[in-house]
Amino acid sequence: MEYNQILEEIQLELTSYKGLGKLPDYIPELAQVDSDKFGCSIVTVEHKKHQIGDVLQKFSIQSISKVFTLAMALSFEGKDLWQRVGVEPSGSAFNSIVQLEYEKGIPRNPFINAGALVIADVLLSRINNPKAKLLEFINMLAGGSHIDINIDVYVSEKNTSAMNTSLAHMLKAYGNINNDINAVLDFYFFQCAIEMSCEELSFALLPFADHTTCFNYAGISLSASRVKRINAIMLTCGFYDESGEFSFKVGLPGKSGVGGGIVAVHPNKYSVAAWSPLLNEKGNSVMGMKALELLTTKTGLSVF
Amino acid sequence: MEYNQILEEIQLELTSYKGLGKLPDYIPELAQVDSDKFGCSIVTVEHKKHQIGDVLQKFSIQSISKVFTLAMALSFEGKDLWQRVGVEPSGSAFNSIVQLEYEKGIPRNPFINAGALVIADVLLSRINNPKAKLLEFINMLAGGSHIDINIDVYVSEKNTSAMNTSLAHMLKAYGNINNDINAVLDFYFFQCAIEMSCEELSFALLPFADHTTCFNYAGISLSASRVKRINAIMLTCGFYDESGEFSFKVGLPGKSGVGGGIVAVHPNKYSVAAWSPLLNEKGNSVMGMKALELLTTKTGLSVF
Amino acid sequence: MEYNQILEEIQLELTSYKGLGKLPDYIPELAQVDSDKFGCSIVTVEHKKHQIGDVLQKFSIQSISKVFTLAMALSFEGKDLWQRVGVEPSGSAFNSIVQLEYEKGIPRNPFINAGALVIADVLLSRINNPKAKLLEFINMLAGGSHIDINIDVYVSEKNTSAMNTSLAHMLKAYGNINNDINAVLDFYFFQCAIEMSCEELSFALLPFADHTTCFNYAGISLSASRVKRINAIMLTCGFYDESGEFSFKVGLPGKSGVGGGIVAVHPNKYSVAAWSPLLNEKGNSVMGMKALELLTTKTGLSVF
Amino acid sequence: MEYNQILEEIQLELTSYKGLGKLPDYIPELAQVDSDKFGCSIVTVEHKKHQIGDVLQKFSIQSISKVFTLAMALSFEGKDLWQRVGVEPSGSAFNSIVQLEYEKGIPRNPFINAGALVIADVLLSRINNPKAKLLEFINMLAGGSHIDINIDVYVSEKNTSAMNTSLAHMLKAYGNINNDINAVLDFYFFQCAIEMSCEELSFALLPFADHTTCFNYAGISLSASRVKRINAIMLTCGFYDESGEFSFKVGLPGKSGVGGGIVAVHPNKYSVAAWSPLLNEKGNSVMGMKALELLTTKTGLSVF
Repeated sequence: MEYNQILEEIQLELTSYKGLGKLPDYIPELAQVDSDKFGCSIVTVEHKKHQIGDVLQKFSIQSISKVFTLAMALSFEGKDLWQRVGVEPSGSAFNSIVQLEYEKGIPRNPFINAGALVIADVLLSRINNPKAKLLEFINMLAGGSHIDINIDVYVSEKNTSAMNTSLAHMLKAYGNINNDINAVLDFYFFQCAIEMSCEELSFALLPFADHTTCFNYAGISLSASRVKRINAIMLTCGFYDESGEFSFKVGLPGKSGVGGGIVAVHPNKYSVAAWSPLLNEKGNSVMGMKALELLTTKTGLSVF
Repeated sequence: MEYNQILEEIQLELTSYKGLGKLPDYIPELAQVDSDKFGCSIVTVEHKKHQIGDVLQKFSIQSISKVFTLAMALSFEGKDLWQRVGVEPSGSAFNSIVQLEYEKGIPRNPFINAGALVIADVLLSRINNPKAKLLEFINMLAGGSHIDINIDVYVSEKNTSAMNTSLAHMLKAYGNINNDINAVLDFYFFQCAIEMSCEELSFALLPFADHTTCFNYAGISLSASRVKRINAIMLTCGFYDESGEFSFKVGLPGKSGVGGGIVAVHPNKYSVAAWSPLLNEKGNSVMGMKALELLTTKTGLSVF
Repeated sequence: MEYNQILEEIQLELTSYKGLGKLPDYIPELAQVDSDKFGCSIVTVEHKKHQIGDVLQKFSIQSISKVFTLAMALSFEGKDLWQRVGVEPSGSAFNSIVQLEYEKGIPRNPFINAGALVIADVLLSRINNPKAKLLEFINMLAGGSHIDINIDVYVSEKNTSAMNTSLAHMLKAYGNINNDINAVLDFYFFQCAIEMSCEELSFALLPFADHTTCFNYAGISLSASRVKRINAIMLTCGFYDESGEFSFKVGLPGKSGVGGGIVAVHPNKYSVAAWSPLLNEKGNSVMGMKALELLTTKTGLSVF
Repeated sequence: MEYNQILEEIQLELTSYKGLGKLPDYIPELAQVDSDKFGCSIVTVEHKKHQIGDVLQKFSIQSISKVFTLAMALSFEGKDLWQRVGVEPSGSAFNSIVQLEYEKGIPRNPFINAGALVIADVLLSRINNPKAKLLEFINMLAGGSHIDINIDVYVSEKNTSAMNTSLAHMLKAYGNINNDINAVLDFYFFQCAIEMSCEELSFALLPFADHTTCFNYAGISLSASRVKRINAIMLTCGFYDESGEFSFKVGLPGKSGVGGGIVAVHPNKYSVAAWSPLLNEKGNSVMGMKALELLTTKTGLSVF
């Protein structure tokens, strides 16, 4: 597969999407990014990388971090985890508290904010220093050592936390948060503030695509079957209320973040990370979504 | 892959699930089936079949028919179809009218009843004799000529149609039904009353798994890209409010019906149909679901 | 109380509200009315009438008819009626089907469309010629003989009936409609198409205000206690999602219709009917609502 | 009116309701009350009191306190208050957070918990020592000096505050809380922990029934028109999702609390407080509701 040529074609076609969408406004740091940026990095299971654009620039991974914390929680809890969080698409906006009340405090899946808070609670119960362990895990996955949070983003997240705090208290009311609420929220804001580049993200996701290599990083180990289940959740729930659309158009398991990043995996073929800051109305990167759609269209390959 | 041996193991393990679940009670014909029945038929893209159990007995395919009508509507309308029906999971029970009102008459996807009614309306607008064409299409897909409806089921469906009639009138109120409502409903009840065996279903689904053969049956032709998109919708929406669970545990695109049938495809590998009449509380076959879960567990292969 | 002077003051103050709001557009007949019209007729329990404006012009009473059919159904069924329809405010738009599904086919109250359809079903079960009886009852209440339907409105209602037909089929699905759905809908459209003037409506409502006179008209008889309960439902449910607002600002039990009519009763004091065709966004007459608010403000009298 | 005799008849008839319902379990203090207790105190606008049962025993007034804080907030803010809280019935359970999200942080009315939190926020913005002022206001209303909170209840409320804390953070997220959330919640738990007897409550509510005496207590002054509007809100929203039922059966404005207390006013006639700890499934006192229903049935008088 001539990935390099395909990436060049994609970059060319994306020029007509420049300027579409808008920057997120809920924290100032995410609105200060150069909105024209775009990068895309593919790593194949043979460890060959194919890249185009701003693949080395760090950005806020935001909700993409939920893939990593889910992997950690699943390694600790095993299938018991599914007593506390579901695997069904949510069918509503990503902050929606409605379904949570309706379903008595069991979040629909680990990728809506409520689900990620429960996952955070699991990690706080299981690990002495979960922040350090999370960074260690991600650095190991990415094969580097320079991945850390952006302090300004972290502080800003804490200062605009009313809706997530509301969610956390409701989870507590239903008995689905065991640790101190402020500690859970603090961890959650920490994970959202992690910064990575497209290159780093594509390497960090490769272990989710490569089922032939043992998944064991920084003490976090998962069977191939569990890795596949994380992929399944990515496909059905990874793009909020637009998951069906992504599955339909791209056909790969993936996860997006409001920092403009998108990751996806083609099992046994490659992992890919794209980044462009302008978002559509559902909170997903306009050019990132389009890039991945073009990638599977041009390669003629998706999981379907 | 030793499918025959795997099927034997599956049948053995399923004995502990016998008697679990219950027969549907909304029409008497579906409740008169021998609840112990089980069959499973696999057809590989090399056209080898592997079967176990009651694979030749006909049963009511019910909602599985929505895959075939979607394929027909997509071949006629192309991407314009997505103006009238979405591709997002519904996140609620299969008859739910709520989302329909909330979303102004655009059904979330083609597999909830409201979506299937819109698909039926498309076919009535496009085809002179849509019932005959549907049967012709399915017979061509399955490579046979003996597939037809069960008249008793068809009549019973018509007599217990209040909720679907309510849905149809609401769609009409929002301008998303163009034909006579009774004609639309009549076609919908007709498609649900089609009877097929596991063997027939597995063959009829094979063209959705095999992207190397041109999809062109009885004049219904689809590009490989469109076939994949139908698969994507099956994966995210094929099992009502349990689609996430099926994707998570089985990892294949599929579709179930309240007649106890389940079909799934492993792209470029095989299609499979399982049948057992007892249903779980979500309306999916207990043993059928478990059979497919065991199949992908034992083969170690899913799309993820 | 100097009602005549107060009515003149009200008419003067209402000039600044002229032209506000819009005509209903769902059937053409309601949109052909002169939008500047305004009338208000008060009848005291001493049978003195005080009027201003276009009090003799007939208009479509629409949902105000639900008060009369409720009175009839209650006289036939007694408290058993409350097994089939509730008495709680609906808290959502007047056509909403959501709550109906959520509450298993028991409409929240008799004044939402679903509730009125159940009331219609009751009358069809109880009366041989319910249309004739309804007209006889209203003519007796109003002390006249010239009240009838507008045929054009009736025909138009039947031709724009999709949402109400949807509601009726859902009620049928839950077993809360016993008669033929088309007959139920036909009666419902008939009642909505009744035409009355402000004068006629104010007289027809007087028996709901006057608890000292026996309520017995055309064979429809109610105890004072039951009449009061109808008033209670008017106060909590009479203005769709704006009932709280009406109770808050006007302080009387009342009922509005999309024909621009509003009726209200001050128990043991008077009944009042106001009419002006332009509606606010909730479907209630702008000037009618304001007229009644001014009436209770200026008289200093409400039930509170 | 022979109130004393009527109260004796009511007490007699209530014996068949003894033991029905259950004690609230969300805080231990409310579950430790003698469940057989019952009291009822009527005070007429001529200041005559008529009582039966345990009318001097203090109990936790809980949500009844919302009437008093609403009166205070309305005296400070006037009609601007209605920019921050609505006057419509909520049509759902009393803790429901759904409508709050749907309506962008504007609680439907001041008597659902979210609305009471906004009212508390208003008081914190307007008064230096709102707790002291609230007690002073209630003591003035009741004409006494011994009304205070129950410290144990107050502490317990604070320790079981997760759902209300969730609500407060959501209100904050929508910009409808201006003060420190913990201070707002602290005041809210304080007001719920106030203890009063039936006698005290009936006197404290009398100014809401008597529109001939100037409403001016501890500096909180309201026009008769505003007092009537509070009564209107009590009638449409005072009993959570059972407000329509109370209006229908009792026909008076009123307010209940999970401590088993119920107050009501018959404008220009009397105020009444009833108390009995066992609650129905909607959270309203079983015997209290029945006592007031019998009162208006036997006197033949309601606002309707």
